[in-house]
Amino acid sequence: MVIVEEAERRARVVMSKVAEPGDPDVCRLVRDHSAGELLGRLRSGRRVDSPKVAAWAGRASTADYDDLARAADLVDARFVCPGDDEWPAALDDLVRLEGEAGDRRVGAPFGLWVRGAVSASALASRCVAIVGSRASTAYGEHMASALAFDCSRHGITVVSGGAYGIDAAAHRAVLSRQSATVAVLAGGIDRLYPVGNTQLLTQVLDSGLLVSEAAPGCAPTKSRFLVRNRIIAALSQGTVVVEAALRSGALNTARWARDLGRGVMGVPGPVTSVASGGVHELLRQPETLLVTDAPEIIEHISPAGEGLAPPKSGIVREIDLFSRTSRQVLDATPLSVPAQVHSIARTAGLVRDEVERELSLLRKAGLVVERTGGWTLAPP
Amino acid sequence: MVIVEEAERRARVVMSKVAEPGDPDVCRLVRDHSAGELLGRLRSGRRVDSPKVAAWAGRASTADYDDLARAADLVDARFVCPGDDEWPAALDDLVRLEGEAGDRRVGAPFGLWVRGAVSASALASRCVAIVGSRASTAYGEHMASALAFDCSRHGITVVSGGAYGIDAAAHRAVLSRQSATVAVLAGGIDRLYPVGNTQLLTQVLDSGLLVSEAAPGCAPTKSRFLVRNRIIAALSQGTVVVEAALRSGALNTARWARDLGRGVMGVPGPVTSVASGGVHELLRQPETLLVTDAPEIIEHISPAGEGLAPPKSGIVREIDLFSRTSRQVLDATPLSVPAQVHSIARTAGLVRDEVERELSLLRKAGLVVERTGGWTLAPP
Repeated sequence: MVIVEEAERRARVVMSKVAEPGDPDVCRLVRDHSAGELLGRLRSGRRVDSPKVAAWAGRASTADYDDLARAADLVDARFVCPGDDEWPAALDDLVRLEGEAGDRRVGAPFGLWVRGAVSASALASRCVAIVGSRASTAYGEHMASALAFDCSRHGITVVSGGAYGIDAAAHRAVLSRQSATVAVLAGGIDRLYPVGNTQLLTQVLDSGLLVSEAAPGCAPTKSRFLVRNRIIAALSQGTVVVEAALRSGALNTARWARDLGRGVMGVPGPVTSVASGGVHELLRQPETLLVTDAPEIIEHISPAGEGLAPPKSGIVREIDLFSRTSRQVLDATPLSVPAQVHSIARTAGLVRDEVERELSLLRKAGLVVERTGGWTLAPP
Repeated sequence: MVIVEEAERRARVVMSKVAEPGDPDVCRLVRDHSAGELLGRLRSGRRVDSPKVAAWAGRASTADYDDLARAADLVDARFVCPGDDEWPAALDDLVRLEGEAGDRRVGAPFGLWVRGAVSASALASRCVAIVGSRASTAYGEHMASALAFDCSRHGITVVSGGAYGIDAAAHRAVLSRQSATVAVLAGGIDRLYPVGNTQLLTQVLDSGLLVSEAAPGCAPTKSRFLVRNRIIAALSQGTVVVEAALRSGALNTARWARDLGRGVMGVPGPVTSVASGGVHELLRQPETLLVTDAPEIIEHISPAGEGLAPPKSGIVREIDLFSRTSRQVLDATPLSVPAQVHSIARTAGLVRDEVERELSLLRKAGLVVERTGGWTLAPP
């Protein structure tokens, strides 16, 4: 990919303030022509091939590069463009979705505001999104915390939305091990929203990143949250929804993940919990995988055959290692009153020779004993 | 299918005592030849084409039809054969699985002991199995109860295993509405096992059925439970596992349902609950559907396109019925300080005409108000 030149980079900075993040017309015009040309047209009142974009002429005339650069400097934010070393190439997958019709038509980002000491592309090389309801339960927060901690322990970057509830629990768990987590914001990179998470988001900066498509100063409006969700989904190899009621925004992130061909995962909860209703609905879709621990998440986002989760086998009892015939003999051997081989054979429905062989194996394993008058189970 | 004649019927009654339920060799020999011939060979010491079956000669010489008939009479039990009006034809699907290799090779039943005033084939016409752990939690019992009650209310017969925990909760819920439920026993039809469920199983008889492959007097051994599970799965159009730890026998029933091409369903629970561990493992298999209520179960066991569950939509707010543009305008309209149309248009990133049209719609819906100086959101 071509490196974006300085003048065009400056025009994109301004356009990140003028246009709504993800506006499909702007994204297309910037990619097909340039932000410089689009901005020039808007500012000079020349024709723009989209009435909606044309309506932003007012914003274009007031937005100023120097103001934005100053605001960014104040919070140590940088603007990263496609083609830059730091640009997470995974975001370019969003270009594929630009053709999609309907209410959710959104463009691929032409730049990203970033704060934090690490490289966004480096962190994004192995990422999982852990998202969920703001209205979470103690159970949901416990699960988000446990999954985020263990994913991070396995070298996977946890991406989330910096919101209250599940998002905060996921970020916090990663921070508790002084590791890197990425919070994708819906408003300007200088607006730590929600205000109650200011301290948390500041801590995210210590080892991880804050990321936003919106220019400094932009408010986190509802529609920007929905558009922001596609960045969370695209940055990650998979999205895990921990708790989400039936209309939770976290399900929107899962839908983006699905449309992007990323892994879609859900953590089940009690059916009686409203906070799990949306996750269960998601888990009824064939593309969603139920996950209960980090190894299952890692298996799902790894290339086929790699990163396999250990099988869940429960407690293996000694008797499980024996054959069905052994188990039948054990089943037919009395607890206290000794029985002779022919009687055990009859109860078990087996041939005498078989029973003798099995009893001898079971005796070696300490499961049966031979007494006067026959065989019994070994005392526990 | 040919009606089994009286002499052969009597021989099958005896064979149900002589052979292990589901023994694949016996099932094959009875179907390909007859129980009469097999019993004659065993009793006269003639060659039988299976050393294991030959070993049952002792049992064959002591088992007596009249004894069994008396024991059955005492508990009002009848013996039903394939081809009888009362025979649930669904059980014949088990013939298809007889060719399967490995530890689970089991034959299709050649007869079934039945107690209760209703017809087994009539009850089996629309059945769902609700099964799970004996070591259940209050949550699991609540779910089993709610699902069984609602399935029954929709005219579906609930089949289960009569065990403690989930099974008992499912049976009880159906009985609470004086409706029919079927308990499939692993031991003889005259042995109400477990003893602690004697009263429950007696109540099942009031409106429903007890069913078993084993002859009166047979003990419910471990291997017979596993073989019994295939009857539960085959009788039902689908099997719902409510709670099951990783090694629960209920998962064995689900496996039979899968092999029989029946619906396999699981009810999720908290990941932190050991009692849901096996269900979650099951739900990770692509053939298992997560279900949270009876309509979802009914949809899954109904022919495609029939019995559809109502969509789960959560709370629909008035604003959800508006377009994205409406929502953007609403988003951009201030709460208290009135804003003029051009200012709202700029914030929303929309054209002035669009905003005017949307504001007028939103005013009619009572969501915005026009004041001196512009527009604000309507007071809540």
